[in-house]
Amino acid sequence: MAHSKARSQDAPFNTIGIFAKRHDDGVAETLAALAADLTARGKTVLLDDNHDTTNYPVTPCARDALGAACDLIVVVGGDGTLLDAGRAVAASGTPLLGINLGRLGFMVDVLPSDMTKTLDEVFAGNYIAESRLMLSAWVRRGGQIMDEAPLLAINECVIRNQAFARVLDFDTYMNGDFISHHRADGMVVATPTGSTAYALSGGGPVLHPGLNALALVPICPHTLSDRPLIVDGDHEIEIHVADSLDGNALFTSDGQVSRALDAGDSVVISRADHDLALIHPPGYDYFNILRNKLHWGRGQAVSSP
Amino acid sequence: MAHSKARSQDAPFNTIGIFAKRHDDGVAETLAALAADLTARGKTVLLDDNHDTTNYPVTPCARDALGAACDLIVVVGGDGTLLDAGRAVAASGTPLLGINLGRLGFMVDVLPSDMTKTLDEVFAGNYIAESRLMLSAWVRRGGQIMDEAPLLAINECVIRNQAFARVLDFDTYMNGDFISHHRADGMVVATPTGSTAYALSGGGPVLHPGLNALALVPICPHTLSDRPLIVDGDHEIEIHVADSLDGNALFTSDGQVSRALDAGDSVVISRADHDLALIHPPGYDYFNILRNKLHWGRGQAVSSP
Amino acid sequence: MAHSKARSQDAPFNTIGIFAKRHDDGVAETLAALAADLTARGKTVLLDDNHDTTNYPVTPCARDALGAACDLIVVVGGDGTLLDAGRAVAASGTPLLGINLGRLGFMVDVLPSDMTKTLDEVFAGNYIAESRLMLSAWVRRGGQIMDEAPLLAINECVIRNQAFARVLDFDTYMNGDFISHHRADGMVVATPTGSTAYALSGGGPVLHPGLNALALVPICPHTLSDRPLIVDGDHEIEIHVADSLDGNALFTSDGQVSRALDAGDSVVISRADHDLALIHPPGYDYFNILRNKLHWGRGQAVSSP
Amino acid sequence: MAHSKARSQDAPFNTIGIFAKRHDDGVAETLAALAADLTARGKTVLLDDNHDTTNYPVTPCARDALGAACDLIVVVGGDGTLLDAGRAVAASGTPLLGINLGRLGFMVDVLPSDMTKTLDEVFAGNYIAESRLMLSAWVRRGGQIMDEAPLLAINECVIRNQAFARVLDFDTYMNGDFISHHRADGMVVATPTGSTAYALSGGGPVLHPGLNALALVPICPHTLSDRPLIVDGDHEIEIHVADSLDGNALFTSDGQVSRALDAGDSVVISRADHDLALIHPPGYDYFNILRNKLHWGRGQAVSSP
Repeated sequence: MAHSKARSQDAPFNTIGIFAKRHDDGVAETLAALAADLTARGKTVLLDDNHDTTNYPVTPCARDALGAACDLIVVVGGDGTLLDAGRAVAASGTPLLGINLGRLGFMVDVLPSDMTKTLDEVFAGNYIAESRLMLSAWVRRGGQIMDEAPLLAINECVIRNQAFARVLDFDTYMNGDFISHHRADGMVVATPTGSTAYALSGGGPVLHPGLNALALVPICPHTLSDRPLIVDGDHEIEIHVADSLDGNALFTSDGQVSRALDAGDSVVISRADHDLALIHPPGYDYFNILRNKLHWGRGQAVSSP
Repeated sequence: MAHSKARSQDAPFNTIGIFAKRHDDGVAETLAALAADLTARGKTVLLDDNHDTTNYPVTPCARDALGAACDLIVVVGGDGTLLDAGRAVAASGTPLLGINLGRLGFMVDVLPSDMTKTLDEVFAGNYIAESRLMLSAWVRRGGQIMDEAPLLAINECVIRNQAFARVLDFDTYMNGDFISHHRADGMVVATPTGSTAYALSGGGPVLHPGLNALALVPICPHTLSDRPLIVDGDHEIEIHVADSLDGNALFTSDGQVSRALDAGDSVVISRADHDLALIHPPGYDYFNILRNKLHWGRGQAVSSP
Repeated sequence: MAHSKARSQDAPFNTIGIFAKRHDDGVAETLAALAADLTARGKTVLLDDNHDTTNYPVTPCARDALGAACDLIVVVGGDGTLLDAGRAVAASGTPLLGINLGRLGFMVDVLPSDMTKTLDEVFAGNYIAESRLMLSAWVRRGGQIMDEAPLLAINECVIRNQAFARVLDFDTYMNGDFISHHRADGMVVATPTGSTAYALSGGGPVLHPGLNALALVPICPHTLSDRPLIVDGDHEIEIHVADSLDGNALFTSDGQVSRALDAGDSVVISRADHDLALIHPPGYDYFNILRNKLHWGRGQAVSSP
Repeated sequence: MAHSKARSQDAPFNTIGIFAKRHDDGVAETLAALAADLTARGKTVLLDDNHDTTNYPVTPCARDALGAACDLIVVVGGDGTLLDAGRAVAASGTPLLGINLGRLGFMVDVLPSDMTKTLDEVFAGNYIAESRLMLSAWVRRGGQIMDEAPLLAINECVIRNQAFARVLDFDTYMNGDFISHHRADGMVVATPTGSTAYALSGGGPVLHPGLNALALVPICPHTLSDRPLIVDGDHEIEIHVADSLDGNALFTSDGQVSRALDAGDSVVISRADHDLALIHPPGYDYFNILRNKLHWGRGQAVSSP
């Protein structure tokens, strides 16, 4: 596979970066315990500079620089924090380990109470490494690319109407081949990771994270047969907003980064040059997380004779 | 509303019928406790004759005769047992109270541990009475009605292909007006009560039990826009199986009663003459049951930023 | 039914109002032909004052005054124009007849080429009158009602997140009873008329227009079992936006009228005091329109052995 | 990719096999024209021995032997005929060209009126070759494999309840990892080719045929979050029917081949050793076929303002 990671799997984890949820009082306790634990292990610890580092035995570091400076990033927060961290560090190939704040996430899968035990395992080399494909998107306006760097997404890119009451008209293409014209609230282009997020709410299927594929999920399409379409992850998707547009459209990646779209704009989405590197504790089981998060098998939902 | 109940709401509950789940060892304990409790209250107790009555202080009674003989039917089992009991006694207007065997049902909503307390309340006149519309169905073949009595349903009537690999072709009518031609695995005609059963699995909506309506839910339709249709409960629905049929079709009510269908047969479904009379303990809350059974609001299922 | 119409069904149609689509060049030709036809029949003709009346033998009239001044409103445009006209004239009870501009709508069901023939029939008393329930909504903020008059809707009321990337948290109530907490892009409360519009795109069922019911259809809900709920049309629905709201929410009726919502606002929705009165040409067949608009039975969509 | 085809792409098409729909009077005319056309081109023509070969200038050949004996198979019929032919000849690697009988299929994409022109192109080497993954399934009972050869499928394998009124309990595994327990009418395991067939009716997404993936689509699942799951095409799927089964279950491939299943049986499904080789006329466009078959973009289905 052409998607290489810069970092060797065998390098020891000496410098550890911490990327923590912002604006959440519940983070402080886990953060203090984590910083103390890592320092006691003799690790060099960097903390993303959106937090006050004076209270912890850590060195501040800009979010975008954490990846290159560290051997491992520990994310403290929810899946949203990991999305934020992941886009910031993905190009470095540095892996992320996620510690949640009490509620299991799809990706932040270590409970605070298991943190020390998990770090013991991880530093002993006993962990499961996984790579997840990411998306890179470019907005094109009148033949011009609008941003200097691609907009990255771990979960999904969304194109949709901004003034909600107006349906969005757009065309989709795969590797330049016309797929279809759509009238809908919008379109989600999701990774397997994102298939359990917004795309699932919109009626998309679950894509196993080991699958190299993208899900195109129209949101509230006018044509009822306009169903989710799954394509190979190496295909390029283009979404062309209608040349005559009633109101504005909006592009968003991971629900966290946005760009306003004009009539006639195109968004070109393809697999990013770098994957997201995740580290899971031993015993990690994707289907177990899925069963838990989706309440599978917890007794039947519907009544039956 | 024209659907009257034969029984006065004010009559005391003196003779109590018990209708219990068959082939379930777990029933015996609750049955013994219930029979003893009712006898101690001075009630006359009848037990449906699918159970050995020698072990209990009760009089055996044919299932179909329980309704006319009793002032109240206590169902011991699951929702399926209540469907069975409900169809047997509905014509009498005698109300049913459901005691489950450990797992809350949509209709059997009294836990065995709350049985005595609930009976105290019910016999003190402190309960919530509710009526649910039922369906009556007739199979018509070559202009002839096939059964002497209508086939009743509390949850739903289902018409479908019997040899599963063959799609079923059929036409639907409402009050004689042609609705549409369908190619599908089958069609569910559900009551509001049944809207949370098989119809929900097939993609139908939840109908509030206070709504006088029927849901027509096609099962695996070939035409993707062949969506569930909700019509007034007083409208008559006819489903006409194609005159040339590849294999047999099957009619079923509540998943418990069935009739084989031939090519060209029609099933005519309308609101039954009698409603199902249910009794709930004080504090009964339909939406609370719905939230519990459907895991609503138990934390979000999909990941989010 | 308590929903009376002010106008007697037997009054002759002498004064005719025309309500025409705005900003559409295609309207002029039909408008001229219609005004000439009506004048030739000796009718008094009023035209809504959003159009230049100098070119037609008509008297200008404010949109809101058309209903009271006329015996019949002829709508020229699409279903959207009829929604606009319907809300403006509904309180008067004056019926509407819809002439489309070339593409059949769900409600504007007379082709321009059939216009004269249809008017012959209608003025001869040969038509099908139908009433459709409408919604009235109030926004409540801190115990205060925000508008002096209710916000009317023929299709649906929508409450949703305005900054699309933020999920909306809200609670729903029926007649004051708590239904559930929701995390979703929004919620549609649709009439039977609106069940084939936005609510259908969002996964709702089709409600037959003769049914007195409302459909609550969550848009992209996080909980996958948060399915459409159908309730009696005489029940009052309240949607309470979470007290702590990330960004703004938006209320819209028929996609045409909107109000910004703050954290803690409630929208109270109930059946409007007046129904929408529609007039259809003889031979009107709801299911035929449905089959046409949804491509039902036009050959199977999916492949099969 | 490890899935090789036995036949060289460069070999000329000298011996042509015809595989035609059974029990269809409409076939004869196209069959006669095709046999005459091929003979006039100097080709050796074999016809599957389910047809009377006396009327045509052809040599009869057993269906299973056609693939090895021919350089090209021309299928005359619908998609179902091509499924039948494809399973029969797949192991030989001989490609199939599909001529439909008047209605465009997903795979039989040559109209009879274009037959001669298309054959000109194909014999001039001007065609689009495509390979589609197939499934091979084994039924395992008490540790024993039940058939001597795998059961092949081009569209899908289906496991479901045979007595429809009984829900089917089963477990799913991917490469031996437990996915989930299911209560449903059944489960479809579909190829990308089959994603537009039964799986689509059951709520599955469209998988682009260039994607190496399988779709697991539960049919009418009791748990509403039991959504379609898409996995890599090289993963092995096992479906284990509950050890205690109420009634029989049934396995079917392509709706054409079936096996009865007992309690405790497993069906093991994986990518077949051979792909299906298809030949399309120049200008073949998958998305164009999809747009046509699903009525995409044919005007909006739902009403809108």
